[in-house]
Amino acid sequence: MSGIRAGVFGGSGYAGLDLVEILHGHPRVDLVFATSNTYAGEAVPGTALTYVPSADADMEQVDVILLALPHRASAEMARRGLDARVKVVDLSADLRLDTPEAYEMSYHTPHPHPDLLPTPYGLPEINREKLAGAELVATPGCYPTTTLLGLYPLLQCEAICRDAPIIVDAKSGVTGAGRKPSLTTHFAEVYSNLIPYKTGRSHRHVGEMEQEARKIDDKIGPIIFCPHLLPVDRGLMSSIYISLNETLDSSQVHDLYAEIYGGEALVDVLPLGEQATLKHAVKTNKCVISITPVLPRQVHISSVTDNLRKGAASQAVQNMNLMFGIDETLGLI
Amino acid sequence: MSGIRAGVFGGSGYAGLDLVEILHGHPRVDLVFATSNTYAGEAVPGTALTYVPSADADMEQVDVILLALPHRASAEMARRGLDARVKVVDLSADLRLDTPEAYEMSYHTPHPHPDLLPTPYGLPEINREKLAGAELVATPGCYPTTTLLGLYPLLQCEAICRDAPIIVDAKSGVTGAGRKPSLTTHFAEVYSNLIPYKTGRSHRHVGEMEQEARKIDDKIGPIIFCPHLLPVDRGLMSSIYISLNETLDSSQVHDLYAEIYGGEALVDVLPLGEQATLKHAVKTNKCVISITPVLPRQVHISSVTDNLRKGAASQAVQNMNLMFGIDETLGLI
Amino acid sequence: MSGIRAGVFGGSGYAGLDLVEILHGHPRVDLVFATSNTYAGEAVPGTALTYVPSADADMEQVDVILLALPHRASAEMARRGLDARVKVVDLSADLRLDTPEAYEMSYHTPHPHPDLLPTPYGLPEINREKLAGAELVATPGCYPTTTLLGLYPLLQCEAICRDAPIIVDAKSGVTGAGRKPSLTTHFAEVYSNLIPYKTGRSHRHVGEMEQEARKIDDKIGPIIFCPHLLPVDRGLMSSIYISLNETLDSSQVHDLYAEIYGGEALVDVLPLGEQATLKHAVKTNKCVISITPVLPRQVHISSVTDNLRKGAASQAVQNMNLMFGIDETLGLI
Amino acid sequence: MSGIRAGVFGGSGYAGLDLVEILHGHPRVDLVFATSNTYAGEAVPGTALTYVPSADADMEQVDVILLALPHRASAEMARRGLDARVKVVDLSADLRLDTPEAYEMSYHTPHPHPDLLPTPYGLPEINREKLAGAELVATPGCYPTTTLLGLYPLLQCEAICRDAPIIVDAKSGVTGAGRKPSLTTHFAEVYSNLIPYKTGRSHRHVGEMEQEARKIDDKIGPIIFCPHLLPVDRGLMSSIYISLNETLDSSQVHDLYAEIYGGEALVDVLPLGEQATLKHAVKTNKCVISITPVLPRQVHISSVTDNLRKGAASQAVQNMNLMFGIDETLGLI
Repeated sequence: MSGIRAGVFGGSGYAGLDLVEILHGHPRVDLVFATSNTYAGEAVPGTALTYVPSADADMEQVDVILLALPHRASAEMARRGLDARVKVVDLSADLRLDTPEAYEMSYHTPHPHPDLLPTPYGLPEINREKLAGAELVATPGCYPTTTLLGLYPLLQCEAICRDAPIIVDAKSGVTGAGRKPSLTTHFAEVYSNLIPYKTGRSHRHVGEMEQEARKIDDKIGPIIFCPHLLPVDRGLMSSIYISLNETLDSSQVHDLYAEIYGGEALVDVLPLGEQATLKHAVKTNKCVISITPVLPRQVHISSVTDNLRKGAASQAVQNMNLMFGIDETLGLI
Repeated sequence: MSGIRAGVFGGSGYAGLDLVEILHGHPRVDLVFATSNTYAGEAVPGTALTYVPSADADMEQVDVILLALPHRASAEMARRGLDARVKVVDLSADLRLDTPEAYEMSYHTPHPHPDLLPTPYGLPEINREKLAGAELVATPGCYPTTTLLGLYPLLQCEAICRDAPIIVDAKSGVTGAGRKPSLTTHFAEVYSNLIPYKTGRSHRHVGEMEQEARKIDDKIGPIIFCPHLLPVDRGLMSSIYISLNETLDSSQVHDLYAEIYGGEALVDVLPLGEQATLKHAVKTNKCVISITPVLPRQVHISSVTDNLRKGAASQAVQNMNLMFGIDETLGLI
Repeated sequence: MSGIRAGVFGGSGYAGLDLVEILHGHPRVDLVFATSNTYAGEAVPGTALTYVPSADADMEQVDVILLALPHRASAEMARRGLDARVKVVDLSADLRLDTPEAYEMSYHTPHPHPDLLPTPYGLPEINREKLAGAELVATPGCYPTTTLLGLYPLLQCEAICRDAPIIVDAKSGVTGAGRKPSLTTHFAEVYSNLIPYKTGRSHRHVGEMEQEARKIDDKIGPIIFCPHLLPVDRGLMSSIYISLNETLDSSQVHDLYAEIYGGEALVDVLPLGEQATLKHAVKTNKCVISITPVLPRQVHISSVTDNLRKGAASQAVQNMNLMFGIDETLGLI
Repeated sequence: MSGIRAGVFGGSGYAGLDLVEILHGHPRVDLVFATSNTYAGEAVPGTALTYVPSADADMEQVDVILLALPHRASAEMARRGLDARVKVVDLSADLRLDTPEAYEMSYHTPHPHPDLLPTPYGLPEINREKLAGAELVATPGCYPTTTLLGLYPLLQCEAICRDAPIIVDAKSGVTGAGRKPSLTTHFAEVYSNLIPYKTGRSHRHVGEMEQEARKIDDKIGPIIFCPHLLPVDRGLMSSIYISLNETLDSSQVHDLYAEIYGGEALVDVLPLGEQATLKHAVKTNKCVISITPVLPRQVHISSVTDNLRKGAASQAVQNMNLMFGIDETLGLI
């Protein structure tokens, strides 16, 4: 079989740069173009390509496009891609929520392309069967990926107490905030600091997390989500605090995770007693999880990814592999 | 009135160095000696003193000693100081727990000086009246200080739901682990990393936090405490997740904190909508707190200190001021 | 004598924030206003003031203005201040070069106010007598301050070989690049990196350094200057490599520096064998210098400042003190 | 052809860990064992192996050993390997100097195995023909590799002025100091700091650099070498300042480097006007060089490597490839 011809839109942002790196090394992919309006004409790092402006990218030359574009621009380009009979892996937030109403509630603007909803949600470990052969997939955000993988086995067996909130204290490296300069990402503001932001239920990813979690167990309580900006470039940790119902004792949780993720190449469950740290996942394509039983009905879960890899670019490639019916981990391990 | 003659034991560790700096600039203190067995004979930074070995420090020359010594050595020296009729501010964990039994449960070794227990617990904002004029005070640890100040107003009005745990996700700079070299504090191990450790209820400070919290409200649930080693040198954040009972609605919590801490010079409550970040507290002598009402019965509290200041050295000096009946904030603002 | 009424223009940039902090704690200064067009209406950190727009600042209310403004805007405001009979301490580059021609050569734009040139150059340790009582002073840049103090004693005794270049390999924290967001100062671009820039003789500070150095010894060779962006927030190190002529042997250089700087409160010369590190100077108002004789005619000098303090704000206040005829170190030690 | 069976001694230090990672991914190598006395019995990261104590490693099972051992221990093991008819790639300093006298002058201790000297010096871009098929190779230190590659083309054409020193201002990440805990590598000592050490001519690598440089051009002046500890984990930059003789003008230097390194897969010369930064080389196996003509006879060179890769582990593997007569870049690009 011949190679998959791929194009990256938004190839000079942080997720786009990782996409380029992964696709360039992928044994079945020919990276045909990478777009960047800002860097048009400059070399695409690590490749022989030159960035082209978005408008000059030719859909005829590719089998698939991967979109690391700003919101709204992404949905537009997804529509164009589908119309040109090209598969589309979207990395933006445009297509992650199932309904235009949910989108408008989280993003405070009408949905740019309601006709594309609902789009299959590209978290393969949870949703694999919906992704195989799909024409369009919405790759989840970094916080939802890391958190949902940390919750999934407990959701699966409906072991979470419905009367308590799910507490998610999350910490993300600065690349999660994008490459566009702002005071928020200025070195001197972040360095030596730790900054909580959009705490409680105000972050846009809360709706996405609850939507997907409730598809698996619709009786869970609300998610309380407090992200922090961490003074590192890469890496994301979701520290999850769960009250269990009577289904399971906390001492059984580790076995449950080990079993459910036993066959997953891109999720590692650490041995009991070890803690998942940022370094376990940074510059890898994996999610790494540790479990600490605290009290019989209380469990602490540390779930870690590289926000630009399993939290973005490598998961997009994992989705692409599924969409083309090839080995899901090709180019990723 | 003449100056207070002070001596620092353990003056070359990180807390000891901050003690020296604060006492050296204190308008009412004469810093007479600072001990260090490792650096004996070398200059004490920022002063005209030379480190003396612990054994050479002369109790006759001072009115007060401040102990930044390892556990067990600290209790021994406290006994010696009291016997020499010198006031003692202990910064170690030796005297923070009220009973030898509690000590042995947390530290897995018999208490070195049960005759010193219980010692007044030196958290002035909560316990001020027990510290005024005291001969011996146990300065709390950095995690308990930051967490208890974050909880105090809710404990005071018994507003915390008794059926839910108190979740404390904490993050500390590396100086909290002391100056003794180890792989844990090796630059290359900590850099770009975030490391959870002693999660759940296994950290030694859990007993201390629960002891003091329950003196104020004995009906609270267990504290679940997950500390993380943060790749910065200074600063400590306790992110606290509370389920409220019917006493208060979460929208009332900010006013409660503003009122209770309104008269405190060393605790700042930020306006609603602002988040307490590490930089709010680092290199200050304050605890800085922000409140986020999440749901009517759920509140998120970010409580931040400099682990070496309000979490250690400056709080020790605040205690010393109280013990000598002088303005509590002298040398600190 | 009554207090000096001072106003800060550009009070929300990094140098401006340090100016505010130092002036607020200065025993003889009343800080009357701090301007910021971006943050107008917001609180000035650490004070009871509110930022006012530059246009609303009232020259009638102050005795002195300190200008931490962008180039060109600074010269305009200096003119306005002098016209209003207010003393002016400029921190910009507008008034550091003696002639409009030199300015145009370095900055590639005509000088905005040639009538103000030449302005006394505010490096007190070298130029003190020209600053006492002055109405207008140009505070040097961070690189020239650190480098010139590292060179001064050798320039003074004309000991530098005229046939060799003076090599200055410099490293600066990111606040030196200002607070305006840009890709250059984006956390993820700087973190874990070390970036040489404007190497050789292309940095604008080269002209300023050579102008001042040649006033002391007009026979020195060219300065070769390679600055690097260091992944820290504050601190500046100039590593200087000097070939000596026959005047002195490298073994005599340390004594020379110790003697010339012996009476300076804000310059420390370390004992032979110790190296000046960034931490020696950060968050202090000092320049710290170490000397290493390498070969009889070769010496290495490490000169370190906090780029926002002795490299900017605290030196401006030192100049202000001299202009008002009060103790030069007031508010600074 | 069958695989090369390799064993790593000292597999738990930082260079050893990178050796393991590279060899594990090498298409022609079977990694048979990795030794660690400290971590014996624990898993070798990223592999299915378990660390064995050095004494238990079986030379019979391997074709080559790579030694990331402390000085002296390394020479002993090299002897043992050769006696067992196994090829040896040494990464220590034991075999880099040609004579026991030179060793004793730099290391202040008699050489442990003078019979092994001189050993071929494993810098392939300079010394390739001596390495092909060799039984024993001494891999250079990180500072010499980076500096010598930065100097080589100018040495080759004898273009360096003999009357001036070669100035090398170098900066290294903390892994260069090894994994053994010490106050020097304590996070809180290094963080936010920049520390010059062993400046001038006192660092042990000066002798190694001059020995190899003078083999190419024996008329150069002395090397003045000032290393700095940089607050990052990986990466090494040598900033080199050269006075040229009349052979070449500085404007010709870039072409010279581009030509000499044109065929080298593991040395990149950046286009004129670009500066080699730490990020160009970190986590790659390359040396990246930029050239700045400063004045007709003055040139600035920035040469950068990952101190654990081209400065240690990947260069060792490059040497191993040459010793076995296979493609030098196998497993490295």
